[in-house]
Amino acid sequence: MLNQLLQKLDEKKEKMIEIRRYLHQHPELSFKEEKTAQYIADFYKDKNVQLRTNVGGYGIVVTIEGGHAGKTIALRADFDGLPINEEADVPFKSKNPGVMHACGHDGHTAYLMILAESLIELKDQLKGNVVILHQPAEETPPGGAAAMIEDGCLEGVDNVFGIHLMSLANTGEVYYRAGEMQAARSYFKVRIQGKGGHGSMPHLSNDSIVAASHFVVATQTIVSRRINPFDMATVTIGSFDGKGSFNIIKDSVELEGDVRTMSSEVRATVEKEFKRILAGLAEEFDITYDLIYSHDYPVLVNDKEMTEIVVNAINKAEIPEVKAVIETPPSSGSEDFAYYLQKVPGSFFYVGAMPSDGPAYPHHHPKFTINEDSLIIAAKTMAAVVVEYFGQK
Amino acid sequence: MLNQLLQKLDEKKEKMIEIRRYLHQHPELSFKEEKTAQYIADFYKDKNVQLRTNVGGYGIVVTIEGGHAGKTIALRADFDGLPINEEADVPFKSKNPGVMHACGHDGHTAYLMILAESLIELKDQLKGNVVILHQPAEETPPGGAAAMIEDGCLEGVDNVFGIHLMSLANTGEVYYRAGEMQAARSYFKVRIQGKGGHGSMPHLSNDSIVAASHFVVATQTIVSRRINPFDMATVTIGSFDGKGSFNIIKDSVELEGDVRTMSSEVRATVEKEFKRILAGLAEEFDITYDLIYSHDYPVLVNDKEMTEIVVNAINKAEIPEVKAVIETPPSSGSEDFAYYLQKVPGSFFYVGAMPSDGPAYPHHHPKFTINEDSLIIAAKTMAAVVVEYFGQK
Amino acid sequence: MLNQLLQKLDEKKEKMIEIRRYLHQHPELSFKEEKTAQYIADFYKDKNVQLRTNVGGYGIVVTIEGGHAGKTIALRADFDGLPINEEADVPFKSKNPGVMHACGHDGHTAYLMILAESLIELKDQLKGNVVILHQPAEETPPGGAAAMIEDGCLEGVDNVFGIHLMSLANTGEVYYRAGEMQAARSYFKVRIQGKGGHGSMPHLSNDSIVAASHFVVATQTIVSRRINPFDMATVTIGSFDGKGSFNIIKDSVELEGDVRTMSSEVRATVEKEFKRILAGLAEEFDITYDLIYSHDYPVLVNDKEMTEIVVNAINKAEIPEVKAVIETPPSSGSEDFAYYLQKVPGSFFYVGAMPSDGPAYPHHHPKFTINEDSLIIAAKTMAAVVVEYFGQK
Amino acid sequence: MLNQLLQKLDEKKEKMIEIRRYLHQHPELSFKEEKTAQYIADFYKDKNVQLRTNVGGYGIVVTIEGGHAGKTIALRADFDGLPINEEADVPFKSKNPGVMHACGHDGHTAYLMILAESLIELKDQLKGNVVILHQPAEETPPGGAAAMIEDGCLEGVDNVFGIHLMSLANTGEVYYRAGEMQAARSYFKVRIQGKGGHGSMPHLSNDSIVAASHFVVATQTIVSRRINPFDMATVTIGSFDGKGSFNIIKDSVELEGDVRTMSSEVRATVEKEFKRILAGLAEEFDITYDLIYSHDYPVLVNDKEMTEIVVNAINKAEIPEVKAVIETPPSSGSEDFAYYLQKVPGSFFYVGAMPSDGPAYPHHHPKFTINEDSLIIAAKTMAAVVVEYFGQK
Repeated sequence: MLNQLLQKLDEKKEKMIEIRRYLHQHPELSFKEEKTAQYIADFYKDKNVQLRTNVGGYGIVVTIEGGHAGKTIALRADFDGLPINEEADVPFKSKNPGVMHACGHDGHTAYLMILAESLIELKDQLKGNVVILHQPAEETPPGGAAAMIEDGCLEGVDNVFGIHLMSLANTGEVYYRAGEMQAARSYFKVRIQGKGGHGSMPHLSNDSIVAASHFVVATQTIVSRRINPFDMATVTIGSFDGKGSFNIIKDSVELEGDVRTMSSEVRATVEKEFKRILAGLAEEFDITYDLIYSHDYPVLVNDKEMTEIVVNAINKAEIPEVKAVIETPPSSGSEDFAYYLQKVPGSFFYVGAMPSDGPAYPHHHPKFTINEDSLIIAAKTMAAVVVEYFGQK
Repeated sequence: MLNQLLQKLDEKKEKMIEIRRYLHQHPELSFKEEKTAQYIADFYKDKNVQLRTNVGGYGIVVTIEGGHAGKTIALRADFDGLPINEEADVPFKSKNPGVMHACGHDGHTAYLMILAESLIELKDQLKGNVVILHQPAEETPPGGAAAMIEDGCLEGVDNVFGIHLMSLANTGEVYYRAGEMQAARSYFKVRIQGKGGHGSMPHLSNDSIVAASHFVVATQTIVSRRINPFDMATVTIGSFDGKGSFNIIKDSVELEGDVRTMSSEVRATVEKEFKRILAGLAEEFDITYDLIYSHDYPVLVNDKEMTEIVVNAINKAEIPEVKAVIETPPSSGSEDFAYYLQKVPGSFFYVGAMPSDGPAYPHHHPKFTINEDSLIIAAKTMAAVVVEYFGQK
Repeated sequence: MLNQLLQKLDEKKEKMIEIRRYLHQHPELSFKEEKTAQYIADFYKDKNVQLRTNVGGYGIVVTIEGGHAGKTIALRADFDGLPINEEADVPFKSKNPGVMHACGHDGHTAYLMILAESLIELKDQLKGNVVILHQPAEETPPGGAAAMIEDGCLEGVDNVFGIHLMSLANTGEVYYRAGEMQAARSYFKVRIQGKGGHGSMPHLSNDSIVAASHFVVATQTIVSRRINPFDMATVTIGSFDGKGSFNIIKDSVELEGDVRTMSSEVRATVEKEFKRILAGLAEEFDITYDLIYSHDYPVLVNDKEMTEIVVNAINKAEIPEVKAVIETPPSSGSEDFAYYLQKVPGSFFYVGAMPSDGPAYPHHHPKFTINEDSLIIAAKTMAAVVVEYFGQK
Repeated sequence: MLNQLLQKLDEKKEKMIEIRRYLHQHPELSFKEEKTAQYIADFYKDKNVQLRTNVGGYGIVVTIEGGHAGKTIALRADFDGLPINEEADVPFKSKNPGVMHACGHDGHTAYLMILAESLIELKDQLKGNVVILHQPAEETPPGGAAAMIEDGCLEGVDNVFGIHLMSLANTGEVYYRAGEMQAARSYFKVRIQGKGGHGSMPHLSNDSIVAASHFVVATQTIVSRRINPFDMATVTIGSFDGKGSFNIIKDSVELEGDVRTMSSEVRATVEKEFKRILAGLAEEFDITYDLIYSHDYPVLVNDKEMTEIVVNAINKAEIPEVKAVIETPPSSGSEDFAYYLQKVPGSFFYVGAMPSDGPAYPHHHPKFTINEDSLIIAAKTMAAVVVEYFGQK
């Protein structure tokens, strides 16, 4: 069956690129992808599948029932764009000023639509079911995944797989990792309230800049003393908003920051210690505070067995466009694919998409581009995973 | 002579108030007091005195030669307004939106013009000379005093006196102090330059917020450990401009602050220690920095003997409007009258000007007002000082 | 009467020096001055006065009732030695190894005994009563003054005076100060308890050295931000006892320190802020602590009027040995004479005692010596104060 | 050949235990193992092998030439004891008071002597050579390994293997790890020199406790901001020796500490940042310092291929006493076996030795004991490694 599937994908390669370019020209921001969702739904309308729209927002769930009873595998692609004004020099440039597919989600969606179509065409042979998850709003917490799960998109699903195209990784390379692959992310905003007054009379005021500086200094001990040194954690205060008049003691300042961790235990430890330091500081410096401390995407943890399926599938498939299958170290990025993996075992992997000519730009850069050859690689590798998953050939 | 002088002042009381109200309606900002200067100069034009205009800017020097040879006393009043939009409910409200006499300089100028006029009328009796210093730009460093001195306003002057009206002190009270009366003021601005980057990769960046916070913390040791505990010093960082994105390590921040001291030795110590801490911090955190560290007005030090003349003069004059002559503790405010006192011995004193009805607002407040009864008190007390100074009665 | 009194003192000069040398040879530590007290009591035994011994410990109160009714003045001298092994090269060296009169209390006691004897001899002329306070244990908090007061030594006393000999001030000079003259002193000991463990596993421990270091850093803000910059305060952590093994996280450390202030308000502010910082730190770093925070001698505040009596008395007396009467700035030293001044107005003053030949050593130095000419000066100046106090001549 | 070898080991099991107990009774401290070395050398004296003694100290190198040409494998066991007074309740307790084999080196040596003897007996069959490294002084930096390498112990050696018995791991379990297994260790001692003085006059002193506390605080940023969050590093200040008098500003303090890292890059980064912070601090607080910063054992990095040989060998050998072969996470401990691995590829592995009855105590504990069944496991697993290494059966 794999050969038939790969052949179909080869035949649909141009169509896949057309879809991707159409999406690229019509990007929409997270939680506002109404037209994109309509476009995707239209694609499946006349196909012989179950189609659910408006799943947890603009989410779309396509269920392909196989000809034979078996397990259910879900494949996910995200479809939101970013608030970036495109500067890439491509003929299919974004038509929505200030919005851009600068993270490859257009490619994710295009490959998965074509793969889905091919699987639908061959579904009688399938020894199980395939659920296609077209997900909105990956870029903006709380993200689209959580709401789709809430709305039942994983019901009956045994395992889940997803791909991210990578503009800085060589096209032809595929990257996998069992276990923790991407970091959990937390966000905080603290308003530290002292009391203003004249700089020459500090005893009549309560200097919020001094208190906040001690807080910044003290939070360094979270990573240096509270976390197992073999664990990963960062606590960054990215914003210290304390602009004021040089000779007036500042009454309040606002700090904002970001926390990354690779386990929910460490995540919880950082939160606990952060809050303790802040509460202690409040007493120490007699200040009051308002704190927002929120967790968004959790650690992305790939299942070991599912990751082996990915690696074995791709190696066995001998896809000519695939040059190497490489283990990747964990990264401090974040993905709401992590939510699916909290529910069912699965694996997320990377497909290299570095342009063959011209410079490569990082994701979220106004000049970001991908090598469109990566689309067929994504489609074929995921095809191989599906076939391997069902134990077919 | 004193009685004649006081009588003249009583007669001119209404004129003094008119002048004050005219000035109040036509305030001008520091270094831009062109029309005010013209108004003052016009007042003296037809009087039988030496008149120098444009002294060190818009400064005016009026020399009243006494009928008898003797020493030369200078009397100073400042005449600039502030960048404040008046909110005081007075019929003679500022006609210049955004500019206001919110520190009483209108009153200073009015009393001194009338006192000068009275002295001119009686100058034949004077056993010495009186120099009237109408000074611009007291509110804004580098101030008007230094430039007027540079331009010769103190040439031939033996001693100098000045008055400040005080809206929060009871009308009828006069405050003096021998020795250090007001603080020296220094200003600093520091740009701390690290290296930006993503919050999850601190090792590739250099966190300027962390470095600057350590700096704020370390500067506390200047006052706590480097200054004689019997000396006065404050080091305030009033502005910590480090606003940024929560998940991006901030590349640079800017701090601004204010230093107050009561002696030039302490002022120099603070500067030396501040610079040492900053230089050490730069190495410690591998950052670079730009520093502006400037001194503006020095410590205002009243001469002991001249202050005794003030106290004795006022006590002996038995001015009915004066209820008390009180020693005042040093304050952390600053005044460019300090520059005159660096050149010649003299004394600066305060005249209470709290409104008799309604609330009193601090200086520089949009609702600041003075009790106009304070004008005659200022004029009479300074008249008494002049007469006492020349050893007359 | 003054002349008679001064003449008597001149006659008893040698006796005064003998007494001083005897005391010098027989020093006793604070609260252990049994024999010294006996020696003093014996001196008064056959004199016609009221003698109370064992007042609040080894204290002695001698009441000299004057021939005429009037106010009651108290004169105080302290008589304890120090735990120092004398190295001064004098023929009357301490015979008690490890104990030394290294602060001049031998001189205080000697001059006051002789002055008392002289006053007793002339008491019929006195227009009031004189209470002689021979006080033990000035050197060691809680000191002897508080217990003597508790035991009634100031009952009926209107005012109190005392002298300290000063080895580093010129013999012939007398120093006075109205208002705050010496600092209040507080003491603290903090045990910071974390949790020990191996240096490579900080997350399983709680590093008391890190917590205590943050505490040291945070306490700098008490002086830098919490105290009126015109007020005096020092907070010194003199001991940071955290010695341990280089690779073991220290479970606990002990800090000890000293606080000096010049007013009870500032003293209270420092204590409040110190305790707040510590409590906040405990929460911040999840440590526990034991704190001892005690106040010993309060600010020594001389009464203005009583100080004027001292100055006038000495100036009028024209004592030939007195060369100058000088105002002294406040100092950060401490004295339990402050307790008397909390109860009744009075004045404490210094009598220069610098050796005329050879080097001068500071108080509490093993080579400390005084110029014995200072004894007669102490006796005569205090005699003058007594006479002036009663309005006699 | 493996069967023969294992059979021999079974036969010599009692002898192995006897040797271990003898060694246990006669422990010697690092660099002082003269008698232990003599005992080991005597064991080999009449055996048909090359024997080198006093290699880099008390090191012993035994070279077993195989009957067939081939590669050369080295096996290492350490033989020093610890400065601990034994409290374990065993009949063969240490006879050297204050010295104890509390880390299992007696077991290492015993198993390796018996394995060596067995290999000697079968050496004609060996398809290569075996070098036995009996190493002194593992416990105390700079350790015995470096000196033995310097003295040529690895000449001609292709690969190296070693075992550590683990009292807290189940007997019957073997633990391996490819890559970084144990941490690199650095040591520092800093003397911070300020200037002493009285606590009430901080401006005349330079408070070394304040400076050192800022140093402790600032060093937290090394781990929190300077190290890749996916890398391991700890910086512990285990000793802060600043005990002094509560009211005297401390002139100097001494800090000592420990650094652990899992790569030489991170090790170098920590050193560089530590030194930079210290140099910056010196300027910031105007102090001077003396620094000792030394590296001892480097990261222990097992070769991947050699580790696979270990795992395969043990799995294939089907040793009845071995219940499981388990991958172990890296640990923050240190070992001078790391030096051998810097020279030739090899692998270090752990053999569980938890007592079957009674409590298990950690290494370096006065009650530390091992399960003597672990000796035969160590011998057999290493036998299997040798046979597998030569590709024999």
